Amino acid sequence: MNSFGRIFRASIFGESHGAGIGVLIDGCPAGLPLAEEDLRRDLDRRRSGAPGTTPRREPDAPQIRSGIFQGRTTGAPILLIINNRDVDSRDYESMRWTPRPGHADFVAEKKYGGFHDYRGSGHFSGRLTAGLVMAGAVARKLIRPVQVTAVLEEAGGFPQIEEAVQDAVDNKDSIGGVVGCRVTGLPAGLGEPFFDSVESLMSHAVFAIPAIKGIEFGSGFRLARMRGSEANDVILDAKGTTATNHAGGIHGGITNGNDLVFRVVVKPTSSIPREQRTVDMRTGQPAVLQVEGRHDACIALRMPVVVEAATALVLADLMRVAGLIPPVVTE
Amino acid sequence: MNSFGRIFRASIFGESHGAGIGVLIDGCPAGLPLAEEDLRRDLDRRRSGAPGTTPRREPDAPQIRSGIFQGRTTGAPILLIINNRDVDSRDYESMRWTPRPGHADFVAEKKYGGFHDYRGSGHFSGRLTAGLVMAGAVARKLIRPVQVTAVLEEAGGFPQIEEAVQDAVDNKDSIGGVVGCRVTGLPAGLGEPFFDSVESLMSHAVFAIPAIKGIEFGSGFRLARMRGSEANDVILDAKGTTATNHAGGIHGGITNGNDLVFRVVVKPTSSIPREQRTVDMRTGQPAVLQVEGRHDACIALRMPVVVEAATALVLADLMRVAGLIPPVVTE
Amino acid sequence: MNSFGRIFRASIFGESHGAGIGVLIDGCPAGLPLAEEDLRRDLDRRRSGAPGTTPRREPDAPQIRSGIFQGRTTGAPILLIINNRDVDSRDYESMRWTPRPGHADFVAEKKYGGFHDYRGSGHFSGRLTAGLVMAGAVARKLIRPVQVTAVLEEAGGFPQIEEAVQDAVDNKDSIGGVVGCRVTGLPAGLGEPFFDSVESLMSHAVFAIPAIKGIEFGSGFRLARMRGSEANDVILDAKGTTATNHAGGIHGGITNGNDLVFRVVVKPTSSIPREQRTVDMRTGQPAVLQVEGRHDACIALRMPVVVEAATALVLADLMRVAGLIPPVVTE
Amino acid sequence: MNSFGRIFRASIFGESHGAGIGVLIDGCPAGLPLAEEDLRRDLDRRRSGAPGTTPRREPDAPQIRSGIFQGRTTGAPILLIINNRDVDSRDYESMRWTPRPGHADFVAEKKYGGFHDYRGSGHFSGRLTAGLVMAGAVARKLIRPVQVTAVLEEAGGFPQIEEAVQDAVDNKDSIGGVVGCRVTGLPAGLGEPFFDSVESLMSHAVFAIPAIKGIEFGSGFRLARMRGSEANDVILDAKGTTATNHAGGIHGGITNGNDLVFRVVVKPTSSIPREQRTVDMRTGQPAVLQVEGRHDACIALRMPVVVEAATALVLADLMRVAGLIPPVVTE
Repeated sequence: MNSFGRIFRASIFGESHGAGIGVLIDGCPAGLPLAEEDLRRDLDRRRSGAPGTTPRREPDAPQIRSGIFQGRTTGAPILLIINNRDVDSRDYESMRWTPRPGHADFVAEKKYGGFHDYRGSGHFSGRLTAGLVMAGAVARKLIRPVQVTAVLEEAGGFPQIEEAVQDAVDNKDSIGGVVGCRVTGLPAGLGEPFFDSVESLMSHAVFAIPAIKGIEFGSGFRLARMRGSEANDVILDAKGTTATNHAGGIHGGITNGNDLVFRVVVKPTSSIPREQRTVDMRTGQPAVLQVEGRHDACIALRMPVVVEAATALVLADLMRVAGLIPPVVTE
Repeated sequence: MNSFGRIFRASIFGESHGAGIGVLIDGCPAGLPLAEEDLRRDLDRRRSGAPGTTPRREPDAPQIRSGIFQGRTTGAPILLIINNRDVDSRDYESMRWTPRPGHADFVAEKKYGGFHDYRGSGHFSGRLTAGLVMAGAVARKLIRPVQVTAVLEEAGGFPQIEEAVQDAVDNKDSIGGVVGCRVTGLPAGLGEPFFDSVESLMSHAVFAIPAIKGIEFGSGFRLARMRGSEANDVILDAKGTTATNHAGGIHGGITNGNDLVFRVVVKPTSSIPREQRTVDMRTGQPAVLQVEGRHDACIALRMPVVVEAATALVLADLMRVAGLIPPVVTE
Repeated sequence: MNSFGRIFRASIFGESHGAGIGVLIDGCPAGLPLAEEDLRRDLDRRRSGAPGTTPRREPDAPQIRSGIFQGRTTGAPILLIINNRDVDSRDYESMRWTPRPGHADFVAEKKYGGFHDYRGSGHFSGRLTAGLVMAGAVARKLIRPVQVTAVLEEAGGFPQIEEAVQDAVDNKDSIGGVVGCRVTGLPAGLGEPFFDSVESLMSHAVFAIPAIKGIEFGSGFRLARMRGSEANDVILDAKGTTATNHAGGIHGGITNGNDLVFRVVVKPTSSIPREQRTVDMRTGQPAVLQVEGRHDACIALRMPVVVEAATALVLADLMRVAGLIPPVVTE
Repeated sequence: MNSFGRIFRASIFGESHGAGIGVLIDGCPAGLPLAEEDLRRDLDRRRSGAPGTTPRREPDAPQIRSGIFQGRTTGAPILLIINNRDVDSRDYESMRWTPRPGHADFVAEKKYGGFHDYRGSGHFSGRLTAGLVMAGAVARKLIRPVQVTAVLEEAGGFPQIEEAVQDAVDNKDSIGGVVGCRVTGLPAGLGEPFFDSVESLMSHAVFAIPAIKGIEFGSGFRLARMRGSEANDVILDAKGTTATNHAGGIHGGITNGNDLVFRVVVKPTSSIPREQRTVDMRTGQPAVLQVEGRHDACIALRMPVVVEAATALVLADLMRVAGLIPPVVTE
């Protein structure tokens, strides 16, 4: 349930205010050079620090606990851990019974009968995506020379992202955004016609990222207004190069050799420093909630590397299933 | 690869111009009344016949081949088959080496080394969705009183769907559309925080449907332009009823007890009765293609019941995993 | 639940006295020549006819319903069906409430709440192994030049099998046996250290065969009485050839390049033409049962090809996971 | 590949001479009281110390790193870790190229291209079973009041186990043994007819334990010499109580309400303090090997709790699939 992949498989674990978070990777070929530095590069892109991101400062120092020997993967499961440091759970006790709108507080209470770790969203925290990012850093090395690049295209509806974020901060509010992702260098033929279509697997992985509420491939929702004569990507040569890429590089669920292109929408951060109405779960009576704690005004700022990670996970697995990544890799 | 589900599991098979198509269902509880009539109701909604749909006329008579005894499911695998009748493969020989733009012809050639059944798109055909629909008809009965309803909200960008379709037919072109889906009566607590989030599973299943290129939950891509203060769904009572439903009934990947709401985009049918440019796969030289055969001008017209089916599959599985559907059902 | 395999995956279905039985195979590479004749060869080895086997005479004519085009696999799911012909269900009505000792009658009633197809053991019937055999026939072609050979080594404790069987028939009784299986030509390196050890996967598949109650690899239970100095297989060369094969070709869960060797025990057929004591499930009172119907005195006679099939399934999947069988095969 | 289970799922990781070993558990219901003390009880039974066990002394102090809050499971993944302490890898450098007979050294070299952690058998080490034992300790609490009990029935062929072990030590040799396991209190109806038969799942899990080379259910291999009239377990009452239990509590792959009974054979420890012949993997030339390091003369002594753990894992998963363990447990 917290795992993904058929052969290259990642399982995430941890809590925001517990001992730490991390990921267990199975099915990674032997022989891949891997150092903590490889993980840190991607983790740094996910970290807070910029305006509009949470003041919580975590060094996010990754530890490799198994599966690596003499600087290379061994073929055995790889356990990657980040200990939590900058934990301050005081604010959460006061919010115990007043679920934050837009958060998982209410569903967690229902699903786990009140036994969940409610501090800092516990296992539901966006902090868990650091585990995804570490798995993605491994996957990214495996799939080379395939390249995955995601960027925040807009925030709050504006391409001037810094201004939009500052405006949200000034208004004690939050904004969402749109992240675009492009994969270059992909071979044709990955994916399966139906339940393992590339769209199925990519969306499955991407929707594991908290706050993402939509995904579209190629021209996506704009296809609803296009004619077939416009939407069909004309094939230009025997390699399958197309004149346009409305399909986002996927036909019949399978990569067609063009760039894989998709966009996801990130909802505005749910935690905002304003009073909000909610309910007291014990009494069912209305309540007013002032979310304390440290939060991002625009979590979308930190998303691109997480989307890249989810994408790399899917591709590493697809390439393993297709036999394109051997059980032992050598560089 | 052609299967979906953890406990309630559907596997589709078949080809457009082969012996037939169908679905094998495993993990269905014993005791559910099931007759071919139950399948026919949903299959009829998927069938062609209306203006803008293919002139191919298949009776789509479902056969129950295993797993039913004395009118009820036995708990053993259920094999559902539809034989193909109205098959005319003549047109496909002439298109053997000139892949139709927007179709799976090119990727199939690459992936299967030329061994695929290329007649009528073979295993890639939209006809395979009849198998999905049959599995969905079973799932739908299982999850009662949960109700799944999908409608075609717009086609070619217009809510006046009939006119838009007629216009496409008149122009020898095709159009896409947007299908909205709503699930009522769902309990809170289904789904898992990460890789088995409801969004992950729903999108995984829905993208198994050919021609779907995007999905959004609740307010979806509009969330990119909203503020947190607007997007957060205020909780009104101890049952979790929210004042708005921007989240589409899912928080933290888990159903929150409100309606599950999502929309998908259907691309315009790739096969259009116009000359199109393509390439000859043998020579790599440009070619001109006139797609013959019988095709839909707006495949989106036939999509709502398929989307419902994919949705019901996911929910039946989630409810089995949660123990909400017992191994033996009695009515 | 009725499926096995990670990439090369078989799902069996059907009932003894229903419309038929069969198997759905997913993950088979494209390009493999496959005709009904390929299936018939193995099915004939499973069929009854010899003394000591059931008088039920089924032609067992396999039908290929999907996944084959122009005599070769397409890469799409392969549906293989055998219709039932020689069905006589009269005897089963009288036994409806008096479970046959050694059979699944009692557990089926408990598990499926009385909704199971009780005729001829329904989905529990040994007849379902014909589906396994068909999937095995495909797998066997895939893994060439690896060869799988199983033989009935003894029946009722005697190597003189014919006499032992005749003696059982004469005594209105039944006997079990031991089937030995040997795989030659296997590469070293298949399998995984823990939960996907070759022993784990082989036993998982083999215990899907009704009536098998034990398995041992290499010297098996005799290892309990051996010393390490005797049991250790001395390695003779860089290919890993060992002087002895007490390990049955598997070390650390992984094939070591020597022959894979294991033995399974088949219990005596439960259905015997004698009066037996049982209970009436409706009243809980003792009852006397005379099993009618047509049964094998020594089902083990028909087992070798079934054991071979289960073995080939596992190996085909392991070789796909290891990338040793490509997505497209050509001969 | 290092994971097992459909809903209740355990993934093991670690190396004998690396940072540590452990297990990640997913699908554990919320609300189960769990303390490190619960794990220690079972770990202590697995530890060395008795005559005939390795002189390596590991405190095996388990750490709970996620999934527990205020003394109870939260429903999120549970990470359990044991750090390695008493590591001495000097002996392994000298054996780098001379694979120990009976060990995974040779296959690891082949499978992982020389990148595996060869110190102390690395990921292949029996030490990894401490992870299994921890997962089993959790599973055991979940399935209560079902009780799992395994005992070493014989070692080296003798029921006088202490003497047999001492004799092996005196002879610088090792011995194997037979472990019997009995489960009481099981409900009827667990398991599935074919690939998820209780025998399939139990053997799959049990063969994940290094050194186990055979398994038999109920009367097992003795059934090969029995008649049906003797082997059939007569049903005595409506609860399914049988007069004998030759089937080991399983009919048709499904628990029948009687005790689940099976036996496994443990091969003699491969590492023995004698000179043994082997080969030099670099040259293919014969070599003589003196295994240094610290080893068990009879690893079977430490096996019962490991077998219990594997058994409890399977049962916890089967009971979750059957809906017999709810998503939230309360005591």
